[in-house]
Amino acid sequence: MKILGIDPGLGRVGFGLLETVRDQNTATGWAGQEFGASQWGIIATSKDKTVGARLQEIHDDMTQIMEQLRPDVVSIERLFYFRNNTTIIPVAQARGVLLMLAYRFDLPVYEYTPMQVKQAITGYGKSEKSEVQEALVGLLNLPKKPTPDDAADGLALAVCHFNHVGRLQLLQESAGQG
Amino acid sequence: MKILGIDPGLGRVGFGLLETVRDQNTATGWAGQEFGASQWGIIATSKDKTVGARLQEIHDDMTQIMEQLRPDVVSIERLFYFRNNTTIIPVAQARGVLLMLAYRFDLPVYEYTPMQVKQAITGYGKSEKSEVQEALVGLLNLPKKPTPDDAADGLALAVCHFNHVGRLQLLQESAGQG
Repeated sequence: MKILGIDPGLGRVGFGLLETVRDQNTATGWAGQEFGASQWGIIATSKDKTVGARLQEIHDDMTQIMEQLRPDVVSIERLFYFRNNTTIIPVAQARGVLLMLAYRFDLPVYEYTPMQVKQAITGYGKSEKSEVQEALVGLLNLPKKPTPDDAADGLALAVCHFNHVGRLQLLQESAGQG
Repeated sequence: MKILGIDPGLGRVGFGLLETVRDQNTATGWAGQEFGASQWGIIATSKDKTVGARLQEIHDDMTQIMEQLRPDVVSIERLFYFRNNTTIIPVAQARGVLLMLAYRFDLPVYEYTPMQVKQAITGYGKSEKSEVQEALVGLLNLPKKPTPDDAADGLALAVCHFNHVGRLQLLQESAGQG
């Protein structure tokens, strides 16, 4: 299973691909390193362009990313309304374009709050950004912290979805073969 | 000039086309009925579909509307963050798709607040919805109130832009010919 984590934004969209790895040498089909991060990065758009032009850029770049990475599922940050969340409008506008693309590529979409993501990565819902990044290094066996921040957030979203759904599927597959 | 007014939303997108009419019989080039509303309507999406599917539907329908109506400019409701505006996320997500399309059709985008729209139509920024609709009947010489509400809101946005920019252009054109 390939999970594409997406951290939406107008100035920067972070993304990270998590690929579950099947070890053919074991009876259960799943073992050893259960997943690996193969790709991560950002789409950055310029403040000098109109909002429409930036959204079109996000649309075009994410289309290319989805075509190249061929994910099976999208894990995206859940937005919610709260006081003083003044950047919510541009983020939601970009998120609309991204959700439309997920539909176009026939990808199921799962949503997680930042707190759920932190909880999944570090075990603590109020971790600092740097702690999440350090934990990702260990979890994904990376040579160093994934950068930039928004790309790390994309990876973290993918890992969060793996934790919530992938392990469940793992158990089901093992049971089916047992 | 053809102005496409757009009232964004996930469940309903209202739109209305205002076409400025040039009367060839006058020296100034502009006279008599200065504009007419030729088309209005809504794009409605079903709650039974995923958000991504509804956004794609808005994308496809608005693409068709822009192709058919060939507007020169878009007038869209300005969103702003305020307390208890809890529907802002789905509206902004739909608005992102619409802004992207305006860019794709190379249409300049102008934004107006609901208060600016009411002010332009009735002269009072806190008018009731029904008062705005009644005023539209008179302004656009319509046989009856434009319906549904969201379509009327789309028309009102187009009239608002005409008031702000069209009259200015009118004066400039008249001056140029004087």
